[in-house]
Amino acid sequence: MDNFTFYNPTKIDFGTGKEKLIGQHLAEHGIKKVLLCYGSDRIKHDGLFDAVTRSLSAQGIQFVECGGIVSNPLLSKVRDGIDIARKNRVDAVLSVGGGSVLDSSKSIAAGALYTGDVWDLFIGKAPVEGALPIFDIMTLAATGSEMNGFAVVTNEETREKFSIGSVHVHPKVSIVNPELMKTVSRDYLVYSASDIIAHSIEGYFTAKVQPHFHSRLVEAIIITVIETTETLMANPDDYNARAVFAWASTQALNGLIYAGTSGYSYPNHMIEHSLSALFNVPHGAGLSVVMPAWMKWYHGRNPAQFERFAKNVFGVSNAEQGIAALEKWFDKIGTPTRLSQLGITEADLPKTIENVLGNAQYFGVADTYTREVVADILKRAL
Amino acid sequence: MDNFTFYNPTKIDFGTGKEKLIGQHLAEHGIKKVLLCYGSDRIKHDGLFDAVTRSLSAQGIQFVECGGIVSNPLLSKVRDGIDIARKNRVDAVLSVGGGSVLDSSKSIAAGALYTGDVWDLFIGKAPVEGALPIFDIMTLAATGSEMNGFAVVTNEETREKFSIGSVHVHPKVSIVNPELMKTVSRDYLVYSASDIIAHSIEGYFTAKVQPHFHSRLVEAIIITVIETTETLMANPDDYNARAVFAWASTQALNGLIYAGTSGYSYPNHMIEHSLSALFNVPHGAGLSVVMPAWMKWYHGRNPAQFERFAKNVFGVSNAEQGIAALEKWFDKIGTPTRLSQLGITEADLPKTIENVLGNAQYFGVADTYTREVVADILKRAL
Repeated sequence: MDNFTFYNPTKIDFGTGKEKLIGQHLAEHGIKKVLLCYGSDRIKHDGLFDAVTRSLSAQGIQFVECGGIVSNPLLSKVRDGIDIARKNRVDAVLSVGGGSVLDSSKSIAAGALYTGDVWDLFIGKAPVEGALPIFDIMTLAATGSEMNGFAVVTNEETREKFSIGSVHVHPKVSIVNPELMKTVSRDYLVYSASDIIAHSIEGYFTAKVQPHFHSRLVEAIIITVIETTETLMANPDDYNARAVFAWASTQALNGLIYAGTSGYSYPNHMIEHSLSALFNVPHGAGLSVVMPAWMKWYHGRNPAQFERFAKNVFGVSNAEQGIAALEKWFDKIGTPTRLSQLGITEADLPKTIENVLGNAQYFGVADTYTREVVADILKRAL
Repeated sequence: MDNFTFYNPTKIDFGTGKEKLIGQHLAEHGIKKVLLCYGSDRIKHDGLFDAVTRSLSAQGIQFVECGGIVSNPLLSKVRDGIDIARKNRVDAVLSVGGGSVLDSSKSIAAGALYTGDVWDLFIGKAPVEGALPIFDIMTLAATGSEMNGFAVVTNEETREKFSIGSVHVHPKVSIVNPELMKTVSRDYLVYSASDIIAHSIEGYFTAKVQPHFHSRLVEAIIITVIETTETLMANPDDYNARAVFAWASTQALNGLIYAGTSGYSYPNHMIEHSLSALFNVPHGAGLSVVMPAWMKWYHGRNPAQFERFAKNVFGVSNAEQGIAALEKWFDKIGTPTRLSQLGITEADLPKTIENVLGNAQYFGVADTYTREVVADILKRAL
């Protein structure tokens, strides 16, 4: 096991009705005025906006709105949010939505305290040295953003989907009420399942140091995601399955399964970020296309771990069967496994490869992910 | 899944040589003077005391000593520590040792800021409303105390072994260097394994709400403890096994496996605390005696979960076989499974039962753990 520091100071307030406590949580942190970030206007019709703002008002907390944040959130919107935050001198950012809203909120919170352009923080030109305190109410379980210090944003000018990682953007309090997630569409449920599985397998397959203990935790998460996704597809109102799905999602990217492992990379995310950045496909849908293709290319480099995955997750006996079982499960639940299902054709490969090569530089894995390798993986996904 | 709040703000600094960073960690928290708590003088001969105090000196941090803390730590010593802390106006407590030293340190830290007698905090006469900041360097992995807000102390006058639980006594920073644990005796290694397994199974078997996900995490911990204990018995110098054992120990009682479960109790700890309090047996040794006896009495109340345990942990097919397999494994590694091995005889049962009944009141489970039930369980352990 490798040396590590584990520090995850986010408070999770989990369960039914917890969104009504957001005002109290903010008041406990001495917050007087928040930037209220959200996506579509749906929350203004389904009662969530009212519940949140009532809770704020009850504590005398003012708010300024920053709505209209989209999936694969955009740098331009982050810049807008920073302007609003500065002009209104808010002292915290409150995200109400899924991972895209929260990642935008984190980026706004960091950018508001940085004197240069916020994109500097994404390209490593400057470190994140502080951020406005961040609070959130999650309406989708997938990204794990509610309990980590990561945020991913797309620069629509350069077509780069890059990230920041800093303890300063760990949320102070994340509210996870599974009831708020029951209206998530079937598509977004299965894309979320794909995203959580991707978070789980990146280190599991690529880490040079990967204790069995960590592999067992990963398998527990994946098996749970498979189980609860199937339950939710049959019965979207199953609160318990919704809750367990959400909590497994949090555990997949809060540091638990990575603490003490080392030498890992995020190749599936690296490749998928190009699909999102270029073609604006849903992140989870892109991942379910990339994963089987990447696994087919990669498995010979870590055969014992792929055999373990096959046996422990799907009860089949070898690497190829394990990969096939995952792909088949993605097909079964209806998340794409082919680029063609995303409307991406062979003609799109050259620019995709180029974008992935840029990401490979960014991720520090350009030696492994050469033009030939990236082309090989993407062709397997056609 | 039940509603819950998860908040674990302890920073874990894990790995080789990390004890040398203790001065820096304290300085980052603005600490100028610490109460340095430890057990035997062994740390003064093996270099640890020197390494720690050098690290403190390098940051200009003063220290006052509170040594001689014993296993099953005593209230009288906690009171002494509080006196030393107050007289010397320390601004933090630093524990160097195992769970007993840390639990004493937590109790001192809470007691130093409480105006009445510290035992009030253990018997619920007053809540823990604050504590001096707590830091620790662990030399034994077992109690999980390095990443939670619990502390257990024995009142040697009343023969009560009671606990406090408060976010105020969560350590600020815990240093876990598995190399410092390699001199742990074989006896204490196996007692530690027993303690970790006990932390894992209490909720697993007794919770009314226990999602499969949580059970999978528990099984991952138990299987890992069994595996790494066996590796360490064959080769005490196996750093990786020592590290994984330590990290599994932390996960068993840091809130992870309990978040969202409900209706659980700690019957094995409840009964064992009487053995420790009355006969001063090592906690883990007492637990390995209590667990099989309790399981034999209890399993019919939760048959599906006991069958699951049998299959997933030991690969056997029913509850009785699973319990027998655990007992056999305890016998194999050499941790006691009978009261007689602890020198406790049938003649000791009446006062033991009386003490357990007091604990049952304290734990709020007196309705279930009646005199007859406690006698039944203890007789099975003779």
